[in-house]
Amino acid sequence: MVCITGWGHTKFGKLDNQSLEDLIIAAGSEPLADAGITGADVDGIWVGHFNAGMVADGFPSSLAMGIDPGLRYKPATRLENACASGSAAVFAARQAILAGEAKVALVIGVEKMTHLSNPDVTAALGHAAYQKDEAGLSFPGVFAQFAQAYFDKYGDHTQALARIAAKNHGNSVNNPLAQLQKPMDEDFCAQVSDRNPMIAAPLKKTDCSLVSDGAAALVLVSDDLVPDMAKAVRLRGVAQVNDIMPMSQRDLLAFEGPRRAIHTAYDRAGITVGDLDVAEVHDCFTIAELLIYEAMGLAAHGHAADLLEGGVVHAGGRLPVNLSGGLKAKGHPVGATGVSMHTLIARQMLGQADAMQHPGAELGLVFNMGGSGVANYASILEPVKA
Amino acid sequence: MVCITGWGHTKFGKLDNQSLEDLIIAAGSEPLADAGITGADVDGIWVGHFNAGMVADGFPSSLAMGIDPGLRYKPATRLENACASGSAAVFAARQAILAGEAKVALVIGVEKMTHLSNPDVTAALGHAAYQKDEAGLSFPGVFAQFAQAYFDKYGDHTQALARIAAKNHGNSVNNPLAQLQKPMDEDFCAQVSDRNPMIAAPLKKTDCSLVSDGAAALVLVSDDLVPDMAKAVRLRGVAQVNDIMPMSQRDLLAFEGPRRAIHTAYDRAGITVGDLDVAEVHDCFTIAELLIYEAMGLAAHGHAADLLEGGVVHAGGRLPVNLSGGLKAKGHPVGATGVSMHTLIARQMLGQADAMQHPGAELGLVFNMGGSGVANYASILEPVKA
Repeated sequence: MVCITGWGHTKFGKLDNQSLEDLIIAAGSEPLADAGITGADVDGIWVGHFNAGMVADGFPSSLAMGIDPGLRYKPATRLENACASGSAAVFAARQAILAGEAKVALVIGVEKMTHLSNPDVTAALGHAAYQKDEAGLSFPGVFAQFAQAYFDKYGDHTQALARIAAKNHGNSVNNPLAQLQKPMDEDFCAQVSDRNPMIAAPLKKTDCSLVSDGAAALVLVSDDLVPDMAKAVRLRGVAQVNDIMPMSQRDLLAFEGPRRAIHTAYDRAGITVGDLDVAEVHDCFTIAELLIYEAMGLAAHGHAADLLEGGVVHAGGRLPVNLSGGLKAKGHPVGATGVSMHTLIARQMLGQADAMQHPGAELGLVFNMGGSGVANYASILEPVKA
Repeated sequence: MVCITGWGHTKFGKLDNQSLEDLIIAAGSEPLADAGITGADVDGIWVGHFNAGMVADGFPSSLAMGIDPGLRYKPATRLENACASGSAAVFAARQAILAGEAKVALVIGVEKMTHLSNPDVTAALGHAAYQKDEAGLSFPGVFAQFAQAYFDKYGDHTQALARIAAKNHGNSVNNPLAQLQKPMDEDFCAQVSDRNPMIAAPLKKTDCSLVSDGAAALVLVSDDLVPDMAKAVRLRGVAQVNDIMPMSQRDLLAFEGPRRAIHTAYDRAGITVGDLDVAEVHDCFTIAELLIYEAMGLAAHGHAADLLEGGVVHAGGRLPVNLSGGLKAKGHPVGATGVSMHTLIARQMLGQADAMQHPGAELGLVFNMGGSGVANYASILEPVKA
């Protein structure tokens, strides 16, 4: 098995003075110090980065070597699976450890987006859609199709989506690394206004996650090194499931890729959804978080909104979701997101999530998604030692 | 251990009527048929692709699912390590098998380049250089620095570089998958002319590899499945070594990353250079092949040209290099190259390389490189069953 023994995380936001390399080095240095190791102890580097033209650095794998001369000559590899590129790096590093070819892995997720205009960011992210049928479709446009399909089948869920936005913004107040650390009123989120325009009906600005710069990093080690480490969180069960690209060939509301990834991870960890204490899930759009509740098995199809009325997924609820503020308020530097989620659940597992902490959390879910349910990564984490 | 049990390879060249997806499907279908399996037998897909803006498909991992409906819901991941992206996919798939999380892996390398103007291709490839110091430097310009350093230290080697170009073009005549299947005169390659202009002194057009479209694919399986397979070639020893990006901080002529990768692979395979029968190496520029001879330990620093005079590395020599025609004449669709090299050495190992076959080849080297010796992948292959 594989454990997380160190983590790092830049603030997410508009970080004008930090290049992609600066972000990699800033985030990547922290988990080494946190785990009490140096570059010489590291057996390989895995970098999650989407890019798609957002920066000129088309070959970022070796940039992390600026952290420490001891990293030179180690294998370094970039992984890309759209907005799940960060988890792709986590999973590849984990397999290198399970293969017996690394004992200690440095994993970094990174993205640099805010220097671009909004249309340019939208165009870059659009490269994660199926180009043959969907070229030119924006990601708000993609998830608007999911939302419209949901509304058509189960009725207007504008208020439920507004509750998700308000919940995640409310949680962000407790996360000093979040891009927007401020609450947001549910009624404001529910209404179209000058400050909350419709982006792609029925999705408004407050239904969309943020454009962000940032990086996050982890040290992973093989279980046999845990006795030497000050702290450890185990990846108890993980699963990756990819679906076909074309939206026209998928049942959008079945959200089959996410459902299969999450349930396979449950099975591998030997748990059910009722065992989970906390989750960080991929709320790239509020409708995605709503569909993920159903994919998790928290609610039957069409019934996810009940969770928001009952407070189940709010701070202090039975299974708080996105205590970090989520992509919605923490920010979504796409290649960093999956790594960020793993750092946040790791902190929850050891009671080290500060003001975000869910008391007594002992089993956590990360669910990170690339495209519209195309690349799906689920991880179940548990504490080993604090 | 891990074996190659099937392969596929499109023709390399200007393939105007085939999209990136078409190439992935064309190449990826072949190794399944070759190995006698279907998509349902595959446990995961690994795609090597550089891109850097050459195509709009920024998230290609799931495109291979168009091969066979049985591939749906399998994990699929894109790997990028510049011009070694193909080997990055091979190595990640291999580690998934060694981790016990896959038995059968489909690996595809792909690139689509020829629809762009030469300046646009040059700019895209330039994204594999270190942007902080080297932005705007072309790859001919990068390798011109290596050539100039070599000429400054060891004297003018124009003729040796011309011999490499002529050798690889001569070999390409035997490879029907090659982009340019025609011999080229050594004197022509040695002279600047209207048809052979200086690109970045001292490198002329004939010192540069080709701009190409193409894809190659492999099926990898765990050793315990070999009894069920019709043929198998084992990855006997492999190594990946990354170096730091900035050229100004590296001793160019030491070519330390390639040397370490190749010698580590020798050590892991328990062989020496004298045991090799055949090699496919990364001749993105003729000077790279010359430096790789030294990195392989075939010649001392400054003495690689002796091999060309002695015919050691020519067809019929003691250790023929790039019997396929190499990147120079076979073509260099960058993400496909590392996978292509593995297919070609696998064929050599089983006596299935047709007119390219080196009689009795029983131990082969693949050396694939990203950037200027930054991402370095070496594999030693041996036959198991034909």
